Formats: sequence, structure tokens, C-alpha cells
Amino acid sequence: MTQVQWQGVFPALTTKFTAADEIDWESMERHLEFQLDAGVHGLIILGSLGENSTLSAAEKLAMVKFFARAERRGLPLITTIAESSTRDAREFAVAAEEAGTDGFMLLPPMRYPSDRRETLTFLHDVAAVTSRPIMLYNNPIAYGTDLTPDDFARLADNPRFEAIKESAADTRRFPEIRRRVGDRFALFCGVDDIALECFAVGAVGWVAGLVVAFPRETVRIWELCQAGRIVEARELYDWFLPLLHLDIGPKFVQQIKLVEALMGVGSAKVRAPRLQLTEAEATRVEKILADALEQRPVV
Amino acid sequence: MTQVQWQGVFPALTTKFTAADEIDWESMERHLEFQLDAGVHGLIILGSLGENSTLSAAEKLAMVKFFARAERRGLPLITTIAESSTRDAREFAVAAEEAGTDGFMLLPPMRYPSDRRETLTFLHDVAAVTSRPIMLYNNPIAYGTDLTPDDFARLADNPRFEAIKESAADTRRFPEIRRRVGDRFALFCGVDDIALECFAVGAVGWVAGLVVAFPRETVRIWELCQAGRIVEARELYDWFLPLLHLDIGPKFVQQIKLVEALMGVGSAKVRAPRLQLTEAEATRVEKILADALEQRPVV
Amino acid sequence: MTQVQWQGVFPALTTKFTAADEIDWESMERHLEFQLDAGVHGLIILGSLGENSTLSAAEKLAMVKFFARAERRGLPLITTIAESSTRDAREFAVAAEEAGTDGFMLLPPMRYPSDRRETLTFLHDVAAVTSRPIMLYNNPIAYGTDLTPDDFARLADNPRFEAIKESAADTRRFPEIRRRVGDRFALFCGVDDIALECFAVGAVGWVAGLVVAFPRETVRIWELCQAGRIVEARELYDWFLPLLHLDIGPKFVQQIKLVEALMGVGSAKVRAPRLQLTEAEATRVEKILADALEQRPVV
Amino acid sequence: MTQVQWQGVFPALTTKFTAADEIDWESMERHLEFQLDAGVHGLIILGSLGENSTLSAAEKLAMVKFFARAERRGLPLITTIAESSTRDAREFAVAAEEAGTDGFMLLPPMRYPSDRRETLTFLHDVAAVTSRPIMLYNNPIAYGTDLTPDDFARLADNPRFEAIKESAADTRRFPEIRRRVGDRFALFCGVDDIALECFAVGAVGWVAGLVVAFPRETVRIWELCQAGRIVEARELYDWFLPLLHLDIGPKFVQQIKLVEALMGVGSAKVRAPRLQLTEAEATRVEKILADALEQRPVV
Repeated sequence: MTQVQWQGVFPALTTKFTAADEIDWESMERHLEFQLDAGVHGLIILGSLGENSTLSAAEKLAMVKFFARAERRGLPLITTIAESSTRDAREFAVAAEEAGTDGFMLLPPMRYPSDRRETLTFLHDVAAVTSRPIMLYNNPIAYGTDLTPDDFARLADNPRFEAIKESAADTRRFPEIRRRVGDRFALFCGVDDIALECFAVGAVGWVAGLVVAFPRETVRIWELCQAGRIVEARELYDWFLPLLHLDIGPKFVQQIKLVEALMGVGSAKVRAPRLQLTEAEATRVEKILADALEQRPVV
Repeated sequence: MTQVQWQGVFPALTTKFTAADEIDWESMERHLEFQLDAGVHGLIILGSLGENSTLSAAEKLAMVKFFARAERRGLPLITTIAESSTRDAREFAVAAEEAGTDGFMLLPPMRYPSDRRETLTFLHDVAAVTSRPIMLYNNPIAYGTDLTPDDFARLADNPRFEAIKESAADTRRFPEIRRRVGDRFALFCGVDDIALECFAVGAVGWVAGLVVAFPRETVRIWELCQAGRIVEARELYDWFLPLLHLDIGPKFVQQIKLVEALMGVGSAKVRAPRLQLTEAEATRVEKILADALEQRPVV
Repeated sequence: MTQVQWQGVFPALTTKFTAADEIDWESMERHLEFQLDAGVHGLIILGSLGENSTLSAAEKLAMVKFFARAERRGLPLITTIAESSTRDAREFAVAAEEAGTDGFMLLPPMRYPSDRRETLTFLHDVAAVTSRPIMLYNNPIAYGTDLTPDDFARLADNPRFEAIKESAADTRRFPEIRRRVGDRFALFCGVDDIALECFAVGAVGWVAGLVVAFPRETVRIWELCQAGRIVEARELYDWFLPLLHLDIGPKFVQQIKLVEALMGVGSAKVRAPRLQLTEAEATRVEKILADALEQRPVV
Repeated sequence: MTQVQWQGVFPALTTKFTAADEIDWESMERHLEFQLDAGVHGLIILGSLGENSTLSAAEKLAMVKFFARAERRGLPLITTIAESSTRDAREFAVAAEEAGTDGFMLLPPMRYPSDRRETLTFLHDVAAVTSRPIMLYNNPIAYGTDLTPDDFARLADNPRFEAIKESAADTRRFPEIRRRVGDRFALFCGVDDIALECFAVGAVGWVAGLVVAFPRETVRIWELCQAGRIVEARELYDWFLPLLHLDIGPKFVQQIKLVEALMGVGSAKVRAPRLQLTEAEATRVEKILADALEQRPVV
């Protein structure tokens, strides 16, 4: 296996639905083009933002196949695994690898607050059925289970695990992981509105949300930070922040999809039990977007 | 539709697995007999204690069919609905009704922290596809979403909703629901180790956990409380409490299944990502059980 | 030392202030009379409800002296110790004993989240300077530090500690303390709106809040529970509950003082940084009180 | 009033005690010299790290007088106000100004979880009695009350409030305050182990803890960040981090004082209810310090 070199901006793509609540492949295709043109560095499908929890196994596999066959200009395709049983997670990993995914983003078990022993067993058991590289995804706020720097140190022995998406919203995790295992893992920021801080303490990548509507700005911030041009990065970031905050909270899917719709690069349609935003909620998002567009810098 | 009369002790049955990780139907049958002999008043399948999150749709339906056909001596069969998408929840409700369930225990959406509007929409949308009575199940500690007394007041208009299993572990909920809608709902305690308190403030039923190993004691406590014999009830309850505490915490399934195994009425086998208890964890449970058996009162 | 026999209803008295923000002794005297006439069983001064944190050392001592000299018809006077430094707590204990208090209610250190070793050391160090009986007060919700049943088991060796006021709002604590040390401590409920549940699991006393405005009803509920007449108790308790809820939350002092004022047995005046309720907040309390008075049962 | 220009590293000084539990003035004097020699930019006394909650009013005033008279090479002396009653806070502010403090660090009320209206009233009421500039101190983790960016926007009208010490441990607060009121306030990081991130998002100062033992390193990190040399800053910061983590948690005072003692610049003595670290706790700190010293870079 060649060592993967994941870094940069990896959009967590939304799943577009038709009026009949089926996946809208045409819209997915247009969106892929839009992201590629902006210079993103990888693609993540079926994540939280992709409404993973409402997709059937068949739909998930269809997504993998679609992206695997699509022209991606060399970008890695990363497929999210978020399942409640070890059996389902393994079966999906095998099927997605066959369908052509380049790698995985792997979450701890859904719906069960597994302890350390159970969580690590689960992660190893899923990794065992694939030869693809895996980005471990830590999001204790949304999913309950917390992968600590100590856990990552233990997981470092498994060569499948190449990267970490850190969404604990605690920037201290980045230096703490590095202290334990150096540069063993490619560290990705997973929370849009603390990205600048994550880069300051050494993140090399950004699994981004608002990128789906504003890919150029997202990529530019990452580039400036990598170049050590933090003051310029902050200027752009400060402009972007009110939008980046929309990546936070239970309704981040609805909020980001509304921004996509308003920017003409997607639809606000979500799948139940999610409902579209109320008028008041939508108006707030529209206001934030309008304010941002008024002052949008040239990138 | 005749008004249902749910009250009393309703065991939340565990799902027994064979060594090959398939459902152990023979064991399920023996266990059903054991519960019926002890005088329980209803049967709940596929709950949290039944490892709902690791069962496939086909397995869940097979469970419903099995219990629907079983001799239940007139006891109502209640099937748990715990799904991530509205579509899956509705499809399962329809299939389970066809398969012969008498009613449902319905949870808010899994994996998505829906707001009030979304939660209520979900509950009504699922109720709309069935003619069976529904017990609403509130467990914000395990599942994040909280159904408040105000929410239940709004849900009172839907005649499908007959009962409430309250697992917020806040006994104040019982009088608060009654204050809003009187005796509109049959109120069930859903937390083993505050059952006595729940009966003190008016619960008429108990969706119980340790009942799977100690059904006679569980039924007796309920009977004494209904008869206003609180001091006698407390004596038995105090004896039972160290065991009832095993119904609490992330590993309540493993703990209760171990007690079943040690009592010869089930197996400790759980399905991954759950793992069986470590030796230290198991020893603690064994000690609690041994202490309880030493002082077991005659019921 | 004679064994104390604390049980029954112990009001946590409010501290009345004049327009000039001094203690209103006349009002305190009238209030004492009102409580005694209703048949309460003990008196607690300088508690949270007594605005302890805003009183100077001199004012606190003046309160002790006032109540020590007052005709109390044999009821025990219990003085709250809530200090930030061990030195201050000890000095106050010595002074209050000299001033004539019959006993103490003792909180863990204020403003410092002491660990178990520090908390127990503090409690023993304060107890060491007095010969009076002490009620330990556990309120992790308001004060951060939690005294667990295990802690109380360790504290049982110290003969100064006679009673426990449990305000963890977790009724499980009562049977758990009894399991460890039997009837070593007189157990008091410290949360008005779970009092009935506390009595169901064995509390023998009630450090009460709304009693300051409704002493007869409070005493009656306690008496009915002691007599095992739980159904009658629940009827009265259900009526009382909307008022008892006012004992909860950051503004319980303002809420209870407003009820006192509206009932003509006190004033709504609080000391800064507390401010009197806003109009909206006050209206809510007035409505709750009006509704309750409309249906007030004869006791 | 001249506009103050607070920025840079402001140590939160510990209070040194003698064996007889009195303030150790000689030790305070030596420590002041040590800090001045390292090039810090301001001095804060009587903070949380200074064991404010265990000092008497007389001791606090003696501290102010001592530092007011000391040779401080032009550095501003900032005195912490952390009181439970508005009256005490105002009286102390007046006395400390008379005693010669240059400014204040002001906390919301202690021991009472005031709401927004009460908190803002308290802060304005205290500010009203002094002509000195004030640094508002937000630490919801330790003290419960949270001053949000919206609150700071409201407080911007009061010219007394010059600076903010942000200890919410949420770096998002910095850009959010700037968005609302631009550079109205000098923004200080108040949490040692997220300092680098705070500077990345625009903090101009650091109310520091470990600085009391490592002032040169602390100052150097700040200087590098101000110069935009984030990569060099990160190298030094990564070395410092295990020590900086000692600024976190309930025992940060004991931990930092132990480091001071081991470095020969202070004593580990704390005042009760705080107890010195247990042997196990101390060993952990000693190990962290030994590891750091082994790799200590030349600054």
C-alpha cells in the first residue's frame, strides 16, 4: 500500500434529493463539478451533512458507485461509515470498497455509548475487512462517544488508520495527539468555525461544511494558513465566520442546504425526520448570507 | 377501537442470541413462559434492552411474528419502533401491525436531535399508518430528545397515543403530565430504580428491566403500591434496589443479561458493538446478585 | 450530649430586609410567630433562602442572637454555615454556639470545588470546634460539590453529624444512604417539589421553602406521609406542586419572597446582586399563586 | 482619563503564605522582582490563582497597599474584585482605589447565578464607584455566570470597562466580540493552554498562570505571536503545553504553586479548605516539570 497523502480541504458533501425524495443524481453531478473547479483536495460522502442516518443501505451504495465512476480529477473519494452494529459496518465497508471508494471516514458505533474497549474493538473490526485507508472521525458532541488523544495513540498501531477528523471542538486535542504520536496521523479540523485555531495548532486538513457553497474562500483560507500568512487568513476568516457558524448545532444540515439553495448550487430539501427550517429560522440564515455577500471579498 | 387498559408490569424483554449470533427462538420461548407464569401484565419486545439498534429489519419482523403467534394468555404484545428515518419507522409500523402486534412503543427519531416541531411531526406521521395503540417512550438521557409534559399535552389530541413510558428519571414529570391532561395517558415508570417514587406520584405501570430475572418480586412491588401498602412495598424494594440499579448506565443490557444467565433464565451473549462485561465488571454484578439472593424474601 | 431527635418540617427562613437594606427584626419576629402557630418542628436560619451569601458576619451573628433569645416553644434553632474558608467557618461556628444556636446546617466550602479529601477534612474541621449537632447539607446543583452516600458513610463516625439535608434532587440517595448506615442519620428532603417521593423512600424530615408562606399545608403533607396515608397526601401535594416548583431555579429566593409578600407574611425585598423579579417574572408567580388560592383546600 | 493601553503578558500572581498561614510579604517581594526581570507587562493580584476566596477583606487591602507602594517599573497594578454582595464589591473597590491600585479585574457576583440583567447591573454598580479602568473577567466554567459577546456589546457603553479576560475556553468568543464592537476592548486570553489559538484569532494579551514560574517563556510566546511568527511560537508552545495544562481543573492553584516551589520561586502552601496535593498528585506534577526541564529550550 502506498502511503496516502491526505491534506487540504475535503468537503463533506450534502446529499441532494428530488421532490419525490429520491437522490438527485443530476444535482450531485453538477455539485461535484462545482467543487472540483474550486480546487478542493478530496471528497467525503455520506457524512452527517450527507444525512447518513436517513439513507438506506442501497442508497448509500449507489452514492459510492456514482462518485467512484465520476471524473474526480484525481481527488480521493472518502466514504463515511456510520452504523449501529458491527455487522452492518463491516458489510458496508466491503461493499463500498468493491464499489470503488478510495478510503473511509469511520465513526464509532451509532446509538450505543460504547466504552473504550468496545469502541476500539469496533474500529479495528471494521478496519479488518478493508485495505483502504481510514480517517477516524471523533465527534463526541454529536455522537456521544469520545476518542481521546490516548485512544488515538492506541489506534496508531493499525496501519489502516491514516487520518483523524477532530470535531471535539477542543483545539487542545491537536497538540496532544502530536505529542503522543508525532505526525503519525494527518490531522483534520472538523468544525468550520474553529478552523483558523486548528491550523494554528497544526491541523493539515479541513473537513469542511460551508465549503459546499463557498469552496474558493474555504480553500483560500487553508492555503494562507499553510503559508503561515495568518493575518491575511484571519481577515478572510472573519468575513466567513457568520456563515461558518451555520455548521454548528442540530440544524446545521438544513442551514447549509439552505445556503446552497440560495447560492444556486443545491436545494434546501432534507429528508424526514428533518424538516426544512421554519420561516423565522430561514430568515435568520438569509440575513447572515445577505450580509456576507454584501462584503464578499475577491478571492 | 376499544380503549386499551394498559397497566401493571410490562417486561422489556431481552433478545436471546445463539452462539452463531442468530436469534435463539427456543430460549425466547422458554423466557416468555417464565414471564407469563410470574403474572406480568404485558410484553414489550425490541426495546433498548432488546438490543434494537443491532437487529436487522428482517430480524425485528421475525420477532414480532414469533410473539404474535405465541400463546400469551391474553397479554398485549407491544413492539418498539426506534428508527432513524420517518420512512423506515412507518414501513416497520405497517409491517409489524400486519405481523400481529397489539400495540407499539414509539421513540422519537434515532441519531437526530429533532426539535419539538420535528419530533411531534415524526410521532404523528408514524402513528398515522397504524390503527394500534401507542405508548410514547421518553428517554432524553439515552436518546437526547426530550418529550416534556407540554409536548405530551399537545400529543393528547391524537387518539393513537394511549400511554407514556417516562424515563427522564425526573419523577416531577408524572404529576406535571397529570396536571395538564388528567388521566388521558396511562403513565408507566421506565426506570427500575425509581419505581417506588414513580408509584408514589401516580404511575400505574412499570416498563421493567430486572423483571426479566425477577418477575415475581417486580409484580409484587407493583401490587403493594397499587394497594397503598407503601411500607411493605418499600421493604421489598429496598432488598431489590442493588439489582434494580443494574438497569442504569450504558451497560445495562450486558448487566441484566448476565443476571439472567446467572439465574438460569437466559444467556449473557450480546451482539457487537456491545461486548460482554470484563471480568471486573462481571464480578461486581455477581457479587450484587449473590448478596441479594442470600437475603431474598419469600414473595 | 443527648441524642437529638430532628424530624418533621423545618422551614428555611427568609431574611427580611427594611427599605434601608437592614435586617427587619420586627418582620422576622412576626414571621417566627406565624411559623410556630402552624406547628413546624424546627427552624433553620441563614440558609440559601436566607440570602446567606449577602449577609455580613456581624449580621449573621445578630440573626443567631435574635432567634436564640426568641420564644421558640421548644423548637430547635439551626444555623447555616456556608463559608469560603475553613477559618471563617470555624470562627462563625464558635461564635454562633456562644450566641445560643442549638445546632448547625453545614455546607461544603463555598467557591472552591473541593475534592472528597478536602471536603471531608473541611467538614470535620468545622465540626471539631462545636459541641452542637450538625445537619450536613448536600446540594451539588447549587454548590458544585457532591456528598455521595459513600461520603456520608465515611462521615458517620463523627458523632457531631446527626442529620442530612439531601438536595441532590435524586431520590435514589435516600435508600442508598440507609443501605450503608441504616438509620444513623435523620434524612431530610431538601427539594420542595420532590418531597412526596422522598417520603416514599424514607425521608423523616423536610427542610422546606414554600412553608414560609404555607406552613399548615406543608406540615399536613408531612403528617399524612408519616401516617402512610399517601393517597391523601398526594391530593394535597398535587394542589401544592405549582407553588412548590417555585423553590427551584436561580430565582427561588425572589419567587418565594414574592409569595410571602402577596400572602401578607413578608416582603419581596432582596439584597443585591439579587434584583426583584421583572414584571413578567412576577406576573407568572402571581398567576400560579392566584390559581392555587382559588382551589386551596381546607387543612 | 487617559486611555489605558493594556496588552501583553499579565501574570495572575499567587498569594504566598507563611507557615503560620499569614501572607508572606518577603516572598511576595522576591516574586515581584522575578516577574519584572522577565519582562511581563502588567500585574494582577487577588485572582482565583491568588486564592481570593480565602482572604479576609483586611488581607486583600494589605495586598493592594503592598503592591501599590512597591517598585513596579511602570507596570499597571490590577486588583481582582470577586465578591458575593454588591455592597462588599463596591466597598472594596473604593478602598482599593484609595490604596493605589491602577485598575481592576472584575468578576460577576460570586455564589449567585445572576441572570443577564442582574449581572450587568452588578458590573455597572461596581464600576460606578471607581475612576480606574476595569478588565471584565468571564469564566463561566469556574463561576457559573457567562458573559457572552452580546453582553460585552451592551457593556461597551461604560467607559470604565477597558479590557476583557476571556476564560470561557471557547476561542470563538474573540472574533465574535470583535464583530460586535471592533477593537473597543483589549482582549486577553485567560486560559493558559489555548493561548496560541487565542492569539491566532486576535487576542492582544494573556492573563497567564504558569508565567509565575516560567515568565520568560510566556513572554516570548506572546512576542512571537504578535510578530506573526506562529510556527516558531508553536514550537515553544508545544514544549510548554504539558505545564500549561496545569492551569486547568479545580486544583490549578495547588499545581501551579507546587511548580513555583520546585522552581525555587515560591511555596506550595495553600490555605484551607484547599489542601496540598496528595503524593500521587504531586508526583504527576513533578514528572511533568522534570520532563519539561529536560527539554527546556533557550529563550
